[in-house]
This record gives sequence, structure tokens and C-alpha cells, in this order.
Amino acid sequence: MNAYARLKEKFSRIAVLDEAAAVLGWDAAAMMPAGGAAARGEQIAALAGLSHELLTASSIAEDLHSAEAPQDGWDEVNLEMMREAHLRATAIPTELVEAGSRANSACESIWRTARPNSDFAAVRPALEEVLNLTRQKAEILAEKLALTPYDALLTQYQRGIVAADVAPIFAEYEAFLRNALPEVEENQRRTPFEALPPGPYPASVQEILCRRLAQDAGLDFSHARLDRSAHPFCGGTPTDIRITTRYDEQDFCSALLGVLHETGHGLYEQNLPRLYMRQPVGAAAGMATHESQSLIVEMQAVRSDAYLSYLAPVLSEAFGAAITQGALKSRLRRVQRSFIRVEADELTYPAHVILRFRLEQAMISRELELRDLPQAWNEGLHALLGITPPDDRQGCLQDIHWYDGLFGYFPSYTLGAMAAAQLMAAARIALPQLDESLLAGDISGLIGWLAGNVHAKGSRFGFNALLTVATGEKLNPAAFRTHLLARYLPNRG
Amino acid sequence: MNAYARLKEKFSRIAVLDEAAAVLGWDAAAMMPAGGAAARGEQIAALAGLSHELLTASSIAEDLHSAEAPQDGWDEVNLEMMREAHLRATAIPTELVEAGSRANSACESIWRTARPNSDFAAVRPALEEVLNLTRQKAEILAEKLALTPYDALLTQYQRGIVAADVAPIFAEYEAFLRNALPEVEENQRRTPFEALPPGPYPASVQEILCRRLAQDAGLDFSHARLDRSAHPFCGGTPTDIRITTRYDEQDFCSALLGVLHETGHGLYEQNLPRLYMRQPVGAAAGMATHESQSLIVEMQAVRSDAYLSYLAPVLSEAFGAAITQGALKSRLRRVQRSFIRVEADELTYPAHVILRFRLEQAMISRELELRDLPQAWNEGLHALLGITPPDDRQGCLQDIHWYDGLFGYFPSYTLGAMAAAQLMAAARIALPQLDESLLAGDISGLIGWLAGNVHAKGSRFGFNALLTVATGEKLNPAAFRTHLLARYLPNRG
Repeated sequence: MNAYARLKEKFSRIAVLDEAAAVLGWDAAAMMPAGGAAARGEQIAALAGLSHELLTASSIAEDLHSAEAPQDGWDEVNLEMMREAHLRATAIPTELVEAGSRANSACESIWRTARPNSDFAAVRPALEEVLNLTRQKAEILAEKLALTPYDALLTQYQRGIVAADVAPIFAEYEAFLRNALPEVEENQRRTPFEALPPGPYPASVQEILCRRLAQDAGLDFSHARLDRSAHPFCGGTPTDIRITTRYDEQDFCSALLGVLHETGHGLYEQNLPRLYMRQPVGAAAGMATHESQSLIVEMQAVRSDAYLSYLAPVLSEAFGAAITQGALKSRLRRVQRSFIRVEADELTYPAHVILRFRLEQAMISRELELRDLPQAWNEGLHALLGITPPDDRQGCLQDIHWYDGLFGYFPSYTLGAMAAAQLMAAARIALPQLDESLLAGDISGLIGWLAGNVHAKGSRFGFNALLTVATGEKLNPAAFRTHLLARYLPNRG
Repeated sequence: MNAYARLKEKFSRIAVLDEAAAVLGWDAAAMMPAGGAAARGEQIAALAGLSHELLTASSIAEDLHSAEAPQDGWDEVNLEMMREAHLRATAIPTELVEAGSRANSACESIWRTARPNSDFAAVRPALEEVLNLTRQKAEILAEKLALTPYDALLTQYQRGIVAADVAPIFAEYEAFLRNALPEVEENQRRTPFEALPPGPYPASVQEILCRRLAQDAGLDFSHARLDRSAHPFCGGTPTDIRITTRYDEQDFCSALLGVLHETGHGLYEQNLPRLYMRQPVGAAAGMATHESQSLIVEMQAVRSDAYLSYLAPVLSEAFGAAITQGALKSRLRRVQRSFIRVEADELTYPAHVILRFRLEQAMISRELELRDLPQAWNEGLHALLGITPPDDRQGCLQDIHWYDGLFGYFPSYTLGAMAAAQLMAAARIALPQLDESLLAGDISGLIGWLAGNVHAKGSRFGFNALLTVATGEKLNPAAFRTHLLARYLPNRG
């Protein structure tokens, strides 16, 4: 066997261990009795440790040194990704990895109390430690990868786009939002609000409906499950997708849209190229790409006029209540300036991401001191949305990410939303009957197009390259703006 | 760190991987969509492979060579068990292990068709291969462990008892059965049969009841789950027990008794000594001991007059039907000579085990040729129970075990049943109020006694030594006979 073939075997074994950990993670969230937590933590840590040992083994280094991959457009990318994964795993000294893990857990744990108390000072020293260690890691990686420290973090979540690409796109969006938001609010004030019937909407009925709509969207339940957990997610493995949600009997929308969002993630995983299963190049292309697949289903397809007009009578029949397309629109497209990212609508959501993108760059580069973070946060949000959080609980303490050592992750949300709009525009051109299909509740055509143009590509392309292959150009935020204007200012002309 | 401390760490890691595999195995049976099977097979195989690599590593051999354990009654046994586990894992050449796995899968797969067709000839060549490879492994282990080949197999399922101990006990039982069985049948004919109401018994009600009775028996559901699967079992890990069952709406007894049986297994695991968690000496003491814990709950406690008199009104209320203690006795204590082991009652069940025990010894020692197995089976069953299977489907093809390479496993069932009776007799002496408690449906006293005298001992003692510690003598089948006579011939005097 040659070096590359050996590497493929080794990376396949690593992927199998990661699959095992994914199933155990799903079980921990959806099935495990509370008393199993301690043992489960050790099981998952042992698998992560073994996976890391395999990835950093000297035999891998030797094979990477001598391996040559076929130049078929896939295998050379695969080998390159193997090299980067090995480099990232070996670059950071073990002591720094361990110090980082400890600092993240300690900080996250303090944050859990600091947030409800709105007490940033209490968590600041722990966050300082997290940030210091993250910066050290970023600087080491930056040197090895010839990137800026922030980009070394950003690219670990999404290959193929760097902060210098993102910054002008975000600046442009800020300008767009400054004009569009007041207009949308004005338009919304003039539009009559239609309320949904008050419910209750039985969880069992919601569940049947969620399963049916996910299946209609193309999710193959001989390779998937839908269960309940406190925090909805899409986990499992490509041949065994595990989607979870929670049901609110006063509001069917959260579970329904949530499941369809996760279905977008699940379809991506189910349609990844089998030929490169368990190889780096056969995996999903990154967080932003993944988010584009959940958001194209949730935001582009399901919240479209056409699909909502299909959905209204389906929901009315399922719940035995009069649910109109108008009420669904009022509920699912309400724009509101808010302090909390996870409650934001699709128009203002990017403002929350832009704020975090700028602040985390400034923190990593030391331009922003942590003692100034709360003020910088509040000023930044005010500049973007014209509102100021009354306290840090609703400001810089709201998200877990930084306190758990995740820097460079936030941009993926908005890059994904923008990519989703761009992909939808391309799909509309390729599929002239797309809106007619959505009227009939049929998104299979769209999914088929995504399967061929995104899912089947695995990680062969980075973010901008993949968009270029699928849509003819790299990320162009114009499609997202066009989408927002069409949805929120339909009469603007 | 000294060699023994290092070994403890390594065996703990092996146990953690085995825990992960156990959860994945439960998931495969109870949760996994069918399409996940191929990937799951590879995940479990990878974990088994890693566990085997860790156990056979040269660093373990070195540490075993130099290690010294504290002489505290536990650690020296732990070290001895580590040595035996390593020896068993390294003794068999890899090619023989792999040939065995392949032969087992091939044979099992042919058996799945051969059994319904009652076609022993079709599976005979594959079974010959399984048997040859099993014999080779047994002979290698026998030499290393200074045991007979059959005992090398037997002791891998249960330490501390060998065929020479078992044979006279089984011979004695055969003689007992020859006299007792006709008498029991005669007595049964004279006893009026009370039928249970015809049902249906909703699965949802059965499930609530099963959960409640398992919990009353002491199963801690903050460390356990009850789910459904095609083949009931108790899996998971000591702090996260996973019991499964299936519900027959025409017959609530199979799920109810099944869950209480598995609860016995689960309680054993939950009560193992935490101080030696994930160490060989901290694990359950073997298959026969495990079976004694499920059977003491199912057969000794739950099928007792006292508990059934408690159960009848509980069931009547739950199902809204008149379920009497008499009807429960008629259903749960029916003695009937049958061809099929898994359908046998507790009096005739040992005959099925005795038959297999004798035949598998003869096969391993080459005294019995496979071509003569069907006839030997039929003659053997006739000698024990006076009935002859009409075909091999109901004869030597009925069980999967041999066709999957499991030789030496069957005796555990009956050794467990006998140990359960012996432990129950000892518990009755230690707990004078035991029968009174059972009348109130309370088996917690019994479980508490077992927790202290069996569960908390882990694997510190082999089978006979554990019974000696708990009851004052090694396995004495008299208690089982006394139990059977009291239950099935109460008027014999």
C-alpha cells in the first residue's frame, strides 16, 4: 500500500471514532438519564483523545511527507486537507491544548452564573485567560499557515474565506441596513398584523407534522431520527442523521421552523459524496456552508410566500384551527430591533454578527481590552441598530461562544445566510418551476439542485470557490439584499 | 507512577471504550434507523479493535511482568484478572481470531436460513469450521491456563467453576427431574386452571407498569432507561443502564416478567463497587452470577406466592380487568415438556441446558461428530424429558449460540438458576421478614441483601467462592430442588 492509501485508511479510522462520539453526543442530549453524564464525559473524552493520538501519530507525519495523491480534483485536496488537519493538531503544544481546555471549562462555568447576574466583572479574569490562550494558539497557527491570527481561527470553522473578504461585505450590509430598517419598520406599521389562533398545539401533532414536512423535504427516515432535546440540533452521522427539537404547545412555529432548519443540515450530510465517505474531502465544507443549507430551507424556501400559502391549510387541518398565510407571515417575518441575537429576525440578525465579528478581531489583535468590552459592545450595537442594552446580560454576556473559547465562529451565521440567498437565486434560474413547486409544498427540486451543486461537492472547494462553482461568482451579498427587499419591502418597486 | 497504577489506568481506558461500544450497541437495537447499520458495524468494530490493541500492547505486557498489587483482597485479584485477560487476548494468533470471526459470521448467516428450513446438512460444513476454530482456540488457551479445552471456554463466561464441578450437579438434577416431573404434571392436572382475561393489554399501560415495578425493585431511573427492542436485553453501563423489552398486547406477562428479569441484571450493574469501577475486579462476576441476579428477581421473588398476591390487584387496577393470583399462578408456573429451551418453564429448563452442556463437551473433545449431532440431540432430549423433536428446527438448530461460535455459555443459565435459589434461601434466613415484604410488593430488602453480599463484591470471588461468602457454602443444588418442590408440589409434605 502506498503512503496516500495508508493515510486514507488512517483518516477513515479517525472519522469512525468521530462518528461514535457523535452518536454518544446525541444520546447524551436526547436519551441519556442525568446520572450517566460523568461516565459519558469520559467516554467522549477518550474517543477525542484517541482520535487526536491517531491524527498526530508520527506514522501519519511520515506518510504525509512522502504521499502523492492522484490529481483528480479530489484526492489532491484530500491530501492537502490531511496535511492541514495534522498541522493544526500538532502545531499547538499539548500543555497549551490542555491549558486551553481547562480555561474554557472554568470560564464557561463562571459565565453560567455571571450571565443571569449581569456581572461581567466576575467572569472577566477567566475570559482574559481564555482569550490569552486562544491568542497564543492563533499566533502559532497563523505562523504555520501564513494567515493572520484571526484568520487562523476563522478558517478552522470555514475554509476559503478570510476576514479581509468579510469586512467589506459586512460594511456594505451595515450601510444597507441603516436605510432599509426604518423603511421596513414603517412598512410593517402600515401592514395589519394577523395573530395566529392561541393554541394549544399538542406536541404529538407538532411532531407528526415536523416528521412529515422533513420527509417531504427529502430527509430519508431510514437514515434519520427525530427526537426531543433541550437544545435543538442536527447530529449523528451521514447515514444516520439525528435531529432534535423541543415543542412549545403555545407556539408551533419554533419546532416547525427549527426542524426544517435542522433538516437542511441533515440533507447536506445525507447527500455528501459516498465515494469520499470518512475522508476530509468528503465531509461538509464548513460551518458557513452548513448554515447556508439550513437557511436555504428555513428562510428561503419555507418562509417564502409560495410555501407559506401551501403550509397554511396543512397546518389548519393538522391542528383543527384556522391558520392563514397572513398570520404565518405576521409571525414568521416580524422585524424587530432586539438585544438578543438568537431572537433576531433575518434582517437584523447580521447586525449582531457584524458586532461580534468586529469585537472579536479587536480582542484577538489586542486593540480592545476586555475591561472595555461592555462599553464597546453597547456602542457597537447602538451604531448598528440604534438601541443600547440595559445591562450586560442582554449585551456582551448573552452568548456562550467566547466564554467557551470559540472565536471566529460567529461570521459563519451571516455568511451562510448570504450564501443561501445567492444559491436560491441561482436555483431559481436553473429551475424555472421552483416557485410553482413551492406553492405545492414541494422543495424536492431545490434539494435536488443543492445535492448536485453543493452537497455532492463535499469539501472539494472552499467557501468562495464552492459558490463560484454553484452560482458563477464568489460570495456576492447583493442576492441577500435583493431577497430581503423583495420580502420586507415588496412595494418599493 | 508504578506499574500497577499504570495498568489500572490502561484497563480503565479499555473499560471506557467498552462502555462506548455498549451504548452504541444499545442504540443499534433500540433507536438506530435501519440505514445506520453498516456505519454502526464499523464504529463498534473500530472500538473493539482499539480495545484489543490496548489490551495486547507490549507496554501492558511489561507492566504485568513487573507489577505488584497491594494485598488487600481486591487489588491482587485485579492484577490476576488483568494477567488472565491479557493472556487470553494475546494467546490466540491474530489470524486465528480473524478466521474465527469470519467463520462465525458466515455460519450464523447460513443458520438463519437453515433453521426455518430445518436443514442441518446445509449449515453443517460451516458449523464444522466454527467448531474446528473454536477447538483450536480452546486448546491453545487450555495449555496456557492449565485447564481442559472445554473449561478454557466455560471459564471465559464464568470464573470459578469447571465442568468437573458441573457434571455431577447436572446428573443429580437429571435424576431429580425423572421423579419430580411426572409428579408435578399429575399435580398440575388435578389443579384447576384459571385463565387470565383475554386482553388486549395496551402497550402504554404495560410500559408504565413495567417502569413502576422496576423502580419499586430499586432500579434508579436517574441512571437507567426502559425502551423497546425486538430482543429484550439489559445493556448500557453501570451508571447508565439500558433495559429493553417488547410488548405483546395479548399477553402482558412476557414484558412484565422480562423487564423484572432485566431489572435484576440492571441492579447488579448499578450496585457494583464504585471504588473499582472500570477495573476487572470491579465488574460483574460472570454470566452465571449475572443470571442468578436476574432469576432471583424474576423466579424467586416475583413468581413467589407472596409477590403474586400483591401483583394481582395492582394489575387488575392498571388494566381494569379482574386478574387473580390464581390466574397468574396458572400462567406463570405452568410446567410443560417442550422442545424449545426459551419457552421452557423453570423445572424443565435445566434439562435443555444439561443436554447442550453434554453435547458441546463431546463436540469440543471430538467424541461426537457433527454428522451425528441431530440424532444425539434427539436421543439426549428423549432421555431427559421423554420427548423427541419432530425436526431439527425444533432440535439442534433452535439456538443461535453454537452457530455463532459460543461454546461453554449454556451452563450459566442453570448455574444461575441454582445459585438464585441458594441465595434466596440465605436471604430468607438473614431477613426473617422477607416473605412479609414480598406480600407488600417490597423486594427492596432482598435487593439490599444482594447488594451487600453479591453486587458489592464485584469480581473479587469466582462463582463458588462468592456463593460461599454469601451463603456459607459453594453451589449446592439442594436449594433449587427445595424451591421447586415447594412451588410445584406444595402438598408433597
